Amino acid sequence: LTYAAAVGRATSSPVGLHRVVSPAGVLPQAAAVLDADPAIYGDEVRIGVRRLNLDAASFRQLREHYADGGALRDAVLEIVRTRGKMHNPVTNSGGMLVGTVEEVGPQSPLGLEVGQRVATLVSLTLTPLTITDALRDWAGTSEQVPCAGTAILFARSAVAVLPDDLDERLALAALDVCGAPALTARVVAQYADSGAAPSVVVIGGCGKSGSMSLAAARRAGAGRVVGVVPHDAEARLLAAAGLADEVVIADARDPLALSAAIGDAVDVTVVCVDVPGCEGGAILATRDKGTVVFFSMATSFPAAALGAEGLAADVTMLIGNGYVPGHAAYALDLLRTDAGVRTLFEGRVAE
Amino acid sequence: LTYAAAVGRATSSPVGLHRVVSPAGVLPQAAAVLDADPAIYGDEVRIGVRRLNLDAASFRQLREHYADGGALRDAVLEIVRTRGKMHNPVTNSGGMLVGTVEEVGPQSPLGLEVGQRVATLVSLTLTPLTITDALRDWAGTSEQVPCAGTAILFARSAVAVLPDDLDERLALAALDVCGAPALTARVVAQYADSGAAPSVVVIGGCGKSGSMSLAAARRAGAGRVVGVVPHDAEARLLAAAGLADEVVIADARDPLALSAAIGDAVDVTVVCVDVPGCEGGAILATRDKGTVVFFSMATSFPAAALGAEGLAADVTMLIGNGYVPGHAAYALDLLRTDAGVRTLFEGRVAE
Repeated sequence: LTYAAAVGRATSSPVGLHRVVSPAGVLPQAAAVLDADPAIYGDEVRIGVRRLNLDAASFRQLREHYADGGALRDAVLEIVRTRGKMHNPVTNSGGMLVGTVEEVGPQSPLGLEVGQRVATLVSLTLTPLTITDALRDWAGTSEQVPCAGTAILFARSAVAVLPDDLDERLALAALDVCGAPALTARVVAQYADSGAAPSVVVIGGCGKSGSMSLAAARRAGAGRVVGVVPHDAEARLLAAAGLADEVVIADARDPLALSAAIGDAVDVTVVCVDVPGCEGGAILATRDKGTVVFFSMATSFPAAALGAEGLAADVTMLIGNGYVPGHAAYALDLLRTDAGVRTLFEGRVAE
Repeated sequence: LTYAAAVGRATSSPVGLHRVVSPAGVLPQAAAVLDADPAIYGDEVRIGVRRLNLDAASFRQLREHYADGGALRDAVLEIVRTRGKMHNPVTNSGGMLVGTVEEVGPQSPLGLEVGQRVATLVSLTLTPLTITDALRDWAGTSEQVPCAGTAILFARSAVAVLPDDLDERLALAALDVCGAPALTARVVAQYADSGAAPSVVVIGGCGKSGSMSLAAARRAGAGRVVGVVPHDAEARLLAAAGLADEVVIADARDPLALSAAIGDAVDVTVVCVDVPGCEGGAILATRDKGTVVFFSMATSFPAAALGAEGLAADVTMLIGNGYVPGHAAYALDLLRTDAGVRTLFEGRVAE
């Protein structure tokens, strides 16, 4: 018998509406404040949190805004204390977490068992969260945050059981971005199915979502595959990983420089860099009837919509949905079987 | 011989880079300030402006922020004076304009002739603009702004010659949103081509883009077509226009109420309301493998991306590109041939 059932709380909702404190009627992601009470409802699951993985855009903003690791740590604690979730109010993004299943409500449809190591595949912006260790083991210098506390999964949540054959930090880093390779593969396959092998450029090709998207594009039938990186060090890393036919250095915020570096406009452009202002360049790099997939949380909706209109560009622009069925298994498989992806991820978590 | 050629200005760019004052290297839409000098380059066209049509999100924000029409007018003048374009810095949106072709550069590929009445189909956020009449004929109470001044078209611009058989304000209102029906038709046709007639819901079905999108959905082969409106007055208007099989009243910012009003989840959801916070409801209203097309400039990219992920919703989410080949002719044809659309538009411009 759970605490929730024992005290007769209101009926729960599969999407978590019962956890919304304010404003009334919105979904948990849109809420200002969630109820993060560790006591579960009958269809919920409680996770004992061990590590948060902050979204790249969120961590970048926090790091640039706060003078040192201590101030940054205090800011994260304050967000979680006041909002009941790690929802960065500036970037409107979160991240995900890993932990161990502590309690499974009798009506939970997620199929989890107590003691399993899991990673959440829904954003921290909608995950009720408490922190009980004051983040004392986090220096504030990495997006990976060692943490003790509790998190709640709703009935309609996405979660992955962590595999035993992969380092937890590696798996977590891959699962954090697993929507990107899965959706890239789907888009590339649509072009490949209907004609010649499509050309693909991934902006931010050396990052987590970028390197996985490059590998996914190739597997899905891409022809020419280009990775764009901001500087020489990443160019060398990505070239060594062998994930792209060409690696080019360009500032993605400079549309002309980007187009010049890429050469011929491509069928599919995948935007994986976490800096604002890349919409115009991505659109200009894409040919007529091509597709741009935006995964960066720094993407501006009006800049993309008006940018394409302003360039009279007949391109399909997708909002990178972080959920694609099978995405977790697909990303973990890339990590296991693609040596280039594996090398880049191992280097990244060792930093 | 143009002034520009006479004084030997720098080479022009088809996308208008030569008009960007700051910051350097960005496209005109992303620029803080444009050079709105009425003297044209060899591949440009100068329009004598007669009317601006402010984007709905922009006008709404301005109207809510400024106490009266005079203050609102001053704000628009100040934006245009300092930025060289009518680019609302809060909403990041603009609108479009009508006027008369004043001068055509010898290298302009747009095929225009001096004296033609035209409407721009690229956003005001990237159109160099001067205002010479202090907007004295505008009371600040309507998004349609009588105006004297000049605007510049680049080589790669989208522009429509206004038809002689339609009232200018009617045509302008239709052209302002012409990307929405064209893209809706394309998406609906893709579903219709691959199986049963898709069900379609248009949120904000009584507005300009919404009513045209409803009509376009039907023409493109939709099955059940539902229009969502915020209150009774619009419900009566839309029902009388006969554009939807069902008209329902719901607050689009309330996901549960919206879903309850719509009933079964649909194949295609089109978001045309100019208020923030409609992402979650639109996603929840859409079935697995369905598509959400966001046309509202109030759409938040992170809210859509994280909202779908948080709901484990396998939906395709499109950023409503305002440019689709043939969009102007398609919208004007809807206005001419669909009595329901025509009636709603006539009522709107008469307000």
